[in-house]
Amino acid sequence: MADSDRPAISAAEARRRIRRGEITGQTSGLAPGRVQGNVAILPADWADEFLRFCLQNPKPCPVLAVGRPGRPELPSLGADIDIRRDVPRYRVFEHGREIAAPTDIAEYWRDDLVAFVLGCSFSFEWPLLDAGLRLKHMEAGTVVPMYRTNIATAATERFRGPMVVSMRPFRPDDAIRAVQISGRYPSVHGAPVHLGLPQMIGIADLGRPDFGDPTPVEADELPVFWACGVTPQAVIEQAKPPFFISHFPGSMLITDLVNAALAA
Amino acid sequence: MADSDRPAISAAEARRRIRRGEITGQTSGLAPGRVQGNVAILPADWADEFLRFCLQNPKPCPVLAVGRPGRPELPSLGADIDIRRDVPRYRVFEHGREIAAPTDIAEYWRDDLVAFVLGCSFSFEWPLLDAGLRLKHMEAGTVVPMYRTNIATAATERFRGPMVVSMRPFRPDDAIRAVQISGRYPSVHGAPVHLGLPQMIGIADLGRPDFGDPTPVEADELPVFWACGVTPQAVIEQAKPPFFISHFPGSMLITDLVNAALAA
Repeated sequence: MADSDRPAISAAEARRRIRRGEITGQTSGLAPGRVQGNVAILPADWADEFLRFCLQNPKPCPVLAVGRPGRPELPSLGADIDIRRDVPRYRVFEHGREIAAPTDIAEYWRDDLVAFVLGCSFSFEWPLLDAGLRLKHMEAGTVVPMYRTNIATAATERFRGPMVVSMRPFRPDDAIRAVQISGRYPSVHGAPVHLGLPQMIGIADLGRPDFGDPTPVEADELPVFWACGVTPQAVIEQAKPPFFISHFPGSMLITDLVNAALAA
Repeated sequence: MADSDRPAISAAEARRRIRRGEITGQTSGLAPGRVQGNVAILPADWADEFLRFCLQNPKPCPVLAVGRPGRPELPSLGADIDIRRDVPRYRVFEHGREIAAPTDIAEYWRDDLVAFVLGCSFSFEWPLLDAGLRLKHMEAGTVVPMYRTNIATAATERFRGPMVVSMRPFRPDDAIRAVQISGRYPSVHGAPVHLGLPQMIGIADLGRPDFGDPTPVEADELPVFWACGVTPQAVIEQAKPPFFISHFPGSMLITDLVNAALAA
């Protein structure tokens, strides 16, 4: 979406190019108006608990689709999707340690793997831009700043940890509009979880994000914080399942879902 | 609504008691769940311009109904309404100066008067309370603090002036919910116009409101500002029409409209 010079190809065409290895980087700006998703792939004996964790924490972990065990299809997101090949780049973990960052996971696929696709912030950033709001990290060509907070997620037996949030600065009147607009998209993080007083959620220094790049907050702006899709990643990495695959940061699954259709 | 000990009478019964002179004070808490409105009554040669002013400034001046010239009925708000008798107390102005504060304006009624009913903040306070949010001015039994701002209304030939706002403090997560909930009620001021940085809208000292009582804002709270129905009152008083009648502060018109039905 920062990449307005990218060709306006369809979601299916984007996936075809990704599958052929022609696109291995960021998916931002590809297939405008289509929903992109965070990917998490877990063995079946961890998947049920992870689904419970997501349902208990819908703001950081909004579930768009869950695959069947051993099946790479996600028909509700696109008839032709093969989750083993349709993400530009993956991260493969064993016992919490990254062992590979391939562009295809066919060789890692197993009969017990379950694929999850979770909503991502691109989906609420589109309507913010459409409403004329400015996203400073995008204008600067940087990655949105993300912070670990003191807001605990609702834990399950093995999944627990702090909520990670992304921050976008807005003037107060635009912050109000950003709350209203993103609040219409509950399936992709929805309304912010906090604004204005970062120390209340355990953020001591906005200039030092835990992930991403700093974005300056001016005197006439408020920092606005949304639950972030890095939360489930961090929670899974901490739980150290024997096997786990995620998308590579910024390299999302492009679905056929129309973004505007997510509006509640 | 602060007055939970008030009998739960219907809107029509409340108006009957008001008309009989049995209720001459505040309408807060009467006919729970029914819309109450600010009242402005102007001569016909000022009314068209005032309507234009309201339509240009829908957040401070949300029009619920306009009467026909010389007619005291407002059938869209209640079959039996007589605007000359159904407000507990009025203020009558000549050339910008208050000349009376009667409980009935039958003797002041003229063939050229046009009655306006504008939405009031009670209508978005109900759903905030229903959502479990706390309204501190109400808990303290005080009048919500109101401030003149540096936000200009969109002027007409004779009507101009700053927007007046009401302030309610909330913790940031509740402020976000307050934006979402009140935003569903665009016909009764809707979402806030500002939050967090009062100096940006010309408010130097929250402890010294221009109208109403101060409400303390704690260190873990943000001040949240809504466009206020005092705006049109102040704008009309400044324009000094030869004749003008308003409701007395806090003594509103109780309508048959169901508050929840206003939700967009």
